[in-house]
Amino acid sequence: MRSLLLSRRDLDFLLHEWLDVGALTARERFAEHSRETFDAVLELSERVATEQFAPHNRTADLHEPEFDGERVHMIPEVAKALEAFAATGITAAGMDESVGGMQLPQTVAQACFLWFQAANVGTSAYPFLTIANANLLLAHGTPEQVETWVEPMLEGRYFGTMCLSEPQAGSSLADITTRAEPRDDGTYRLSGNKMWISGGDHDLSENIVHLVLAKVPGGPAGVKGISLFIVPKFLADGQRNDVSLAGVNHKMGFRGTVNTLLNFGEGRHTPGGEAGAVGYLVGEEGRGLALMFHMMNEARVGVGGNAAALGYTGYLHALDYARTRTQGRPPTAKSGPPVAIIEHPDVARMLLAQKSYAEGAVALILYCARLLDDERTGATEVDRARAHLLLDTLTPIAKSWPSQWCLAANDLAIQVHGGYGYTREYAVEQFWRDNRLNMIHEGTHGIQGLDLLGRKVVLHDGAGLRLLLDTITGTVDAARAAGLDDHADALAAAVARTGEVTAALWAAGDPAVTLANSSTYLEAVGHVVVAWMWLEQLVAAAGREGDFYDGKRAAGGYFFRHELPRTGPQFALLESLDRSTLDVRPEWF
Amino acid sequence: MRSLLLSRRDLDFLLHEWLDVGALTARERFAEHSRETFDAVLELSERVATEQFAPHNRTADLHEPEFDGERVHMIPEVAKALEAFAATGITAAGMDESVGGMQLPQTVAQACFLWFQAANVGTSAYPFLTIANANLLLAHGTPEQVETWVEPMLEGRYFGTMCLSEPQAGSSLADITTRAEPRDDGTYRLSGNKMWISGGDHDLSENIVHLVLAKVPGGPAGVKGISLFIVPKFLADGQRNDVSLAGVNHKMGFRGTVNTLLNFGEGRHTPGGEAGAVGYLVGEEGRGLALMFHMMNEARVGVGGNAAALGYTGYLHALDYARTRTQGRPPTAKSGPPVAIIEHPDVARMLLAQKSYAEGAVALILYCARLLDDERTGATEVDRARAHLLLDTLTPIAKSWPSQWCLAANDLAIQVHGGYGYTREYAVEQFWRDNRLNMIHEGTHGIQGLDLLGRKVVLHDGAGLRLLLDTITGTVDAARAAGLDDHADALAAAVARTGEVTAALWAAGDPAVTLANSSTYLEAVGHVVVAWMWLEQLVAAAGREGDFYDGKRAAGGYFFRHELPRTGPQFALLESLDRSTLDVRPEWF
Repeated sequence: MRSLLLSRRDLDFLLHEWLDVGALTARERFAEHSRETFDAVLELSERVATEQFAPHNRTADLHEPEFDGERVHMIPEVAKALEAFAATGITAAGMDESVGGMQLPQTVAQACFLWFQAANVGTSAYPFLTIANANLLLAHGTPEQVETWVEPMLEGRYFGTMCLSEPQAGSSLADITTRAEPRDDGTYRLSGNKMWISGGDHDLSENIVHLVLAKVPGGPAGVKGISLFIVPKFLADGQRNDVSLAGVNHKMGFRGTVNTLLNFGEGRHTPGGEAGAVGYLVGEEGRGLALMFHMMNEARVGVGGNAAALGYTGYLHALDYARTRTQGRPPTAKSGPPVAIIEHPDVARMLLAQKSYAEGAVALILYCARLLDDERTGATEVDRARAHLLLDTLTPIAKSWPSQWCLAANDLAIQVHGGYGYTREYAVEQFWRDNRLNMIHEGTHGIQGLDLLGRKVVLHDGAGLRLLLDTITGTVDAARAAGLDDHADALAAAVARTGEVTAALWAAGDPAVTLANSSTYLEAVGHVVVAWMWLEQLVAAAGREGDFYDGKRAAGGYFFRHELPRTGPQFALLESLDRSTLDVRPEWF
Repeated sequence: MRSLLLSRRDLDFLLHEWLDVGALTARERFAEHSRETFDAVLELSERVATEQFAPHNRTADLHEPEFDGERVHMIPEVAKALEAFAATGITAAGMDESVGGMQLPQTVAQACFLWFQAANVGTSAYPFLTIANANLLLAHGTPEQVETWVEPMLEGRYFGTMCLSEPQAGSSLADITTRAEPRDDGTYRLSGNKMWISGGDHDLSENIVHLVLAKVPGGPAGVKGISLFIVPKFLADGQRNDVSLAGVNHKMGFRGTVNTLLNFGEGRHTPGGEAGAVGYLVGEEGRGLALMFHMMNEARVGVGGNAAALGYTGYLHALDYARTRTQGRPPTAKSGPPVAIIEHPDVARMLLAQKSYAEGAVALILYCARLLDDERTGATEVDRARAHLLLDTLTPIAKSWPSQWCLAANDLAIQVHGGYGYTREYAVEQFWRDNRLNMIHEGTHGIQGLDLLGRKVVLHDGAGLRLLLDTITGTVDAARAAGLDDHADALAAAVARTGEVTAALWAAGDPAVTLANSSTYLEAVGHVVVAWMWLEQLVAAAGREGDFYDGKRAAGGYFFRHELPRTGPQFALLESLDRSTLDVRPEWF
C-alpha cells in the first residue's frame, strides 16, 4: 500500500535525481555516508513516523493537553512516540559525531524530518524545537553549556523551547519587558511573562531548556538591549527553577503541541533561597536577537517544512479518496456506471493544484537544506558565502510560500472529499486547521514580506536578489538546453520582471510606500521561486519516461499555466507603487 | 458600541441609497409598508440576533448536538433563540398576508436574515431551511398540504428539511436509490437512506417536515425518474412515521446545526400498522428535481448569505481588534509608543480586503433579493422575465463567490489577530471553520461552475449572459456620468473580455474541454460581477462626503486595483482552452 504521508519515490527523485546528495559523500564531513546509510535513515523515519506518530495524530487533536493548575496532562501516545523518536538518533542527525551526531547532510536530515511532520505535526514539534535549540547552543554556547544542556537534549532526555514573545510584544520584540538582573556569580535572575511558548511545560522529558530573550536593566533601548539566556526548568543540581506555567492556549489546530504562557521569576520557586528564574547568558549581552536568529532562521525553514508536509499528506489523502470514491459520469456519458471522481477534470484540477503546491514546497525546503549543506561544507569560501547569501534571501519565502499554498492545498483536499472532508471522520479537515498556524508563528506572513523586501533584497547593495535571479537564470539556460523552451521563456520573463519591479519599488524614494506593498511582493516573488523549483524538477525529469515523470511534467506544466501567470497583475500593482493601504484612514473603516 | 455582527449604517446605504427599497412601497404588494416598517423589522432582527443568537454561538460550537442512539441532545439556548425568532414573525417575512406573512420585500427580509446568519450561522439554519421548505410548498403544494404542513412551519411549531443526498449520491442526484411505492389511497411509502440532512432530527419543534427526493419504481432512469415527497416525522394524526435517525455527522464547523443520516422505511416505526415512511407527493411524479430547484435556488443564495454574513462579522471583529491592539511602530519611527495595528499598512491591507469582500458579497446577496422582488412584482411581464433571467444567471455566483472570498476574509481576520486569532478565546477561528462548509453544501463549487458555464450562459441562446453584460454596461455608463472613468473603463474592459472568452470557450466545439475550465470561469466572472457590485456602490456614493463614503471609495478602489486584475490571467487561460486538467491521466498522480 502506498503511504499517505509522503511519496518515497518523490523524495528519492528529489534527493538523488535532482539534488544529487550522493555527491555530498565526497566531502570529508559526510565521507562515512553512502546511498545505503541515507536509505536506511529514510526508511527508519518512514517506519517510526508511520507506526508511532501517525496513529495518534487525530487522538491528540481530540484530546489536547490539559492544565490542571499544577501540571500538563496529555495522551500517553505522545511520550511513547517521542521515546521511539529519541531511539532513532535522528535528534542529532545533522550534528557532529563528537557530540554523538550522525553527521548526515542536512538535505537528508530534512527529508527525514518531513516524515514526522507529515505524520503528526503536533508531536513532531517537541523534537524539532529541541534540535533548533541545540543547534543554537552548539554554535554559540560555551563547552560547559553544551555539556550540561545540549548533550541531554541530543539523547532525548531534555527538550528545548524558544521564548521570544510576550503578551504585549509578539511581532515587535523591541518591546519585550522581561528583565534579567546580573548576579555576582555570573548568573542572572529573570522575571517576566512569555507568551506562545510551544512545549513550555509538560512531563515528557526530564528537563526543559528554555532559550529566553530578556533585557538587562540599564542596557540600551530597543533590540540592542536584548540578551539571550538559558533558563532550565530544573537547575543542574535538580532544584526547581522559578519558571511556572501560567496557562495553556486553546488552539484551533496544532493541538498536540502544548502552547503556554510562562511566568519567569514570580517567586513560586526559590532556587538557592531566592526568587527569580536563574538564567545563564549565551554569548554576549545585547547580542540576544542576533543569536536567536540563528534558531529563528532554522525554525522558519522548519515552519515551511511543517506546511509542506501537511500539504503533501493532504494531497495523498485526497488522491486516495479520488481514486476510490465513485460519483457521476463524464459530461459526454449520460448513462453507464458512476466513475471514480479522479476522472472528472475539476477533481483532476484540484489534485494537480495540490501536487504542484505540495511537491513544489517540498522541493523548496529540500533545496534550502542543500544550501545549508553547501554553506557548511562547500568546497570554497566563495561557494559557502554564496550558499549562505542565497539561503538567507530564500528564507522568508521558504517560510511563507508553503504556509500559504499548502494551506490552499489542504483546502482543496477538503473540497475533493466533498461533505465527508468537512467531517472529523476524515483526516483532511485537521490538516487544514493544523496548517493555518504556519502563516502566523515564527514571524507572521507580513513580517516575512518586510524581511524580504525591506531587508533581504537591499542588503549588500542587492547582492542577495542578484544572486537569486542569476541562479534562476542558470536554470532557465539548463531548461533551454533540455528543450523546455516555453517554460524557460516564461520563467526568464518572470525573472526580468522581478528585477525591474524591485528596482521600481526602491526607486520611489519613499520607504513607506515601498514597504506598504511588501506582502504582495513576497507572494509574487514566492510564485517565481516555486516556478523555478518546478523548472529545476522538469530539467531533472527531462528525457525520462514513465508515469512518475509524466506526473512531474503535468504538475509542473500546471504550475506554469495556472499559477505563474498570477504574478502578472501582482507585478503591475507593485510597479504602480500602490498607495491604497497607506492612504486609507482608520476612521474610514 | 458598534455592533460586531453587521453595520446597520451599511445596510441602510445598500437598501435605501443604492437599491431604493422605498420605491417598492409604490407596488401594490408592499403598499402597507414604509421606511418605518422596514426600520422596525431591521431593528428587531438586530436585537434578537444580538441578544438571543450571538451569545450561544461559541457554546454551540463547543457542545455540538449529541445522539444517544434515541434522541439528539443540544444546548438549551438553541430552542430559546428559536422561540424568540418565531415570536418575531420573520419566518413569514416575505410571505403573503393570507398565510400570516408580513409581505415584506425580499430585499428587506434578506437584510433581516443576515443579522441572524452573522450572529449564529448554526442556529439560523433551522428557520432558514424551514422558510425555503415552506416557500416550495406554497408554490407547488396543494391547499391541503399548505394548511397541514406550511402553516405550522410559519408559526414556528414545525421545522423543515431538504433531503436530496444519499451516501453514494451527493453531487450526482441521478443516482439516488430511495424508493417511493404508491399506495391505493394516493400516499406513498418511502424507503432509503438520506445523508447530510441538516436539521434532520431534534426536539426543537413539534414536528419536522422533510422534503424528500425519491424514485417511484418503474419510472424513467436518471433525473426524470425523481419525484418529490413530503415525509413528516409525525403524521397529521400524531403517529410516528417510519423515519429514523441513523447517526449524526461530526463536522469541523457549523456545529450548531445537527447534520444527520436518516433512514426512511427501515421498519422502526409502523404507521398504520405497516413499515415504510408515509410520503405525500408534491406536484407530479417525475418533476421532483425541478421542484426541488425552487428550494435549491433559494438555498444557494442563502448559502451566499451565510458566507457573506460570516465574512462581514469576521471583518468587524478584526477591525475592532486592529483598533485596540497596539504593536510596533511605523517604519519611519524607530522609537515612541507602540501604535494601534490598524496604522500598519499591511494590517490596513487585510482590513481593506475583508471590507471589499464582505461588503461586496452582501451587496450581491441584496441585489439578488431585489431581483427576486422584481421577478415577483415588477411592473411589466418584461421586467419580471428580465429579473428572473438575471437572477437565474447570477445564482451560481451568488452562491460561490461569497463562499470563496468571505472564507478568504475570515482567513485574513485570523491573520489580523495573529496568534490570538488562532485560539478559541477569540471568535474568528470559528467563523473560518463555519464558513468552510459553504463551498460544499447546496452544490459544490465545481457544480456551480458547471451550472454557470454549462447551463446558465448557454440557455436561451446566451440570453442570460447578454443580459448580465448589458446590465453591467448600464452601470459602466452611470459611472462615467458620475466621473468614475477609471473604474468604468476597467469594468467595461472586463465585460468585453467576459463576452469574448465565453464565445471562445464555446467556439471550441468540444464541450469536454470547455467544461474542464468551468471553475476558473466561475471565479473570473465572479470577480467581474463583484467589481460591478462595487461600481454600483461607488455610483451611489458619488458626490457624498464623510468617512462612510470615503470608506466605500477606499474599499471599492482596493477591489479595482488589487482584485479585478486577477481576472487577466484567468481569462487568458480560459481563452487558451487549457487542457491540463483534461489530459492528465489518473496514473500520473
